[in-house]
Amino acid sequence: MRIDNLQYANWSEKIFRQLREGGVDAIHVTIAYHENFRETVLNFEKWNRWFEQYPDLIMKGQGASDIDVARETGRTAVFFGFQNPSPIEDDIGLVEIVHTLGARFMQLTYNNQSLLATGCYEAEDMGITRMGKQVIKEMNRVGLVVDMSHSGDRSTIEAADLSERPIAITHANPHSWSPALRNKKDDVIRAVTQNGGMLGFSVYPHHLKDKGDCTLESFCEMIARTAEQFGAEHLGIGTDLCQDQPDSIVEWMRVGRWTKEIDYGEGSASAPGFPDMPHWFRDNRDFGNIENGLLATGLSEDEVAGIMGRNWYNFYAENFSPRG
Amino acid sequence: MRIDNLQYANWSEKIFRQLREGGVDAIHVTIAYHENFRETVLNFEKWNRWFEQYPDLIMKGQGASDIDVARETGRTAVFFGFQNPSPIEDDIGLVEIVHTLGARFMQLTYNNQSLLATGCYEAEDMGITRMGKQVIKEMNRVGLVVDMSHSGDRSTIEAADLSERPIAITHANPHSWSPALRNKKDDVIRAVTQNGGMLGFSVYPHHLKDKGDCTLESFCEMIARTAEQFGAEHLGIGTDLCQDQPDSIVEWMRVGRWTKEIDYGEGSASAPGFPDMPHWFRDNRDFGNIENGLLATGLSEDEVAGIMGRNWYNFYAENFSPRG
Repeated sequence: MRIDNLQYANWSEKIFRQLREGGVDAIHVTIAYHENFRETVLNFEKWNRWFEQYPDLIMKGQGASDIDVARETGRTAVFFGFQNPSPIEDDIGLVEIVHTLGARFMQLTYNNQSLLATGCYEAEDMGITRMGKQVIKEMNRVGLVVDMSHSGDRSTIEAADLSERPIAITHANPHSWSPALRNKKDDVIRAVTQNGGMLGFSVYPHHLKDKGDCTLESFCEMIARTAEQFGAEHLGIGTDLCQDQPDSIVEWMRVGRWTKEIDYGEGSASAPGFPDMPHWFRDNRDFGNIENGLLATGLSEDEVAGIMGRNWYNFYAENFSPRG
Repeated sequence: MRIDNLQYANWSEKIFRQLREGGVDAIHVTIAYHENFRETVLNFEKWNRWFEQYPDLIMKGQGASDIDVARETGRTAVFFGFQNPSPIEDDIGLVEIVHTLGARFMQLTYNNQSLLATGCYEAEDMGITRMGKQVIKEMNRVGLVVDMSHSGDRSTIEAADLSERPIAITHANPHSWSPALRNKKDDVIRAVTQNGGMLGFSVYPHHLKDKGDCTLESFCEMIARTAEQFGAEHLGIGTDLCQDQPDSIVEWMRVGRWTKEIDYGEGSASAPGFPDMPHWFRDNRDFGNIENGLLATGLSEDEVAGIMGRNWYNFYAENFSPRG
């Protein structure tokens, strides 16, 4: 079983077919960065059209059992998430509404301060806000998973402790391996995993040691060391694959509508666009490379199967339904 | 089994308890008259709160099987509908979105011309519009029932013929019994019922012979005659009960935001408010009166059971799910 717990591709029939070629049973796709509620609904509508147009390749995922259906019918189950709480605006009632529409992950922040928490690019992290505490409780109630991939350390640790259900860092790597601002320090990973949460390893070059030149061996050794430290059952994949996107999209991700100036985020003025992917992971057909690389590190077959998909499957099974 | 296929009460714990006292297993409630999409979502949110607050009295209804669950657990299943297509704005993609959120009936018009069809108060009825034809097809696909209660005759007959699934007049009576503008002529009722559709009888005084002075006997005899003419299996109840609503609400229903002048609709300058209900149907505890009145007409027990609930149950079972 293969699950990729974060992608933001420029979706097309070509990519849907590559998902099948790569044996990807489920993906979690981002459908909002800065979109408000109504704009997010347009993105749900876009996926409804794709489900109608490509019923043999993809299907809407709502719970883990949909992954079983997808496997039995040779399709990929698509689960939805937001990298920012902008879709719920200032309205806690929208938490249940977006869950009903199919959202299963929501980041409390995307780099900046939000109404709920502090993003990892702010100079100060004031932790979970008053509204943030209420929204975490509501997310726990309905089965919308708290994702802290782009949040500050303090906010992430507080979210892991406040949340009564496990949370996730869907796409990031350990800071100790590659000290990017977006990668996570050990105490952050510990707070998430010791409460039953998950860390998804990213293949986005800015999160890799030596960026696009990172070797498959280094990436897989890093995963093996993280498994020793925090337990293999808390680990999965969240590639952050942004296949076929034009550079205007990475600018939208970074800048949205919150500034009139350019913000280069993890890029720079000399390299503002999407970075080149490592040669061993160019698209969804390359998951076999990661699986073989993990087996070569000495991780057991069972551990590798968990990291490649079963751990996310189990997490979905526990955390996507209303509580009780 | 008792199902009331249209109410627009000022909902409260008191009314939810009266639904239980009256043995009402399911209701279809209006949650939009003139609301746009975002405003309609606020109304879904309001119901989500009530479901959370009164889990022993009410539950969200999505399919006929939810009525079985409601009966087994002593609750009322609440199904949602719109009396106007305003919630889908000019966006056909919203048809599936509102269905996902729980909408199961949508009127193509509310008295006036809409983007989809002509309302019963317009001087001319131009039939189903270009967008209307597309939206009927999409409603058929997802399982959102076309309701023509407030539409013009030509639009209703065209909708019944264009729709590939049965449609409904959720709340109206035969024009031959009481010639109100909102009541339906025989050829309209025939077009709906001969295609498998349903007519729900209204107890709203403006739709009754002699308004609030209408006798239970007259109402029930009218139903018995309609059963002879069109078949009892196509008939149900849709009281249009607007319990505990202030008169400002009937003004909102009639005027919305489409005019700066007052429109009295079925009322008049001298009687602009909600009319008084007949003494034999004041609230949800009075369904027994209608049931007994129907049995007194000579309709069989089986026919009466169908009209009081089973016919709507069967209609829900066939028409609320995506096709195929």
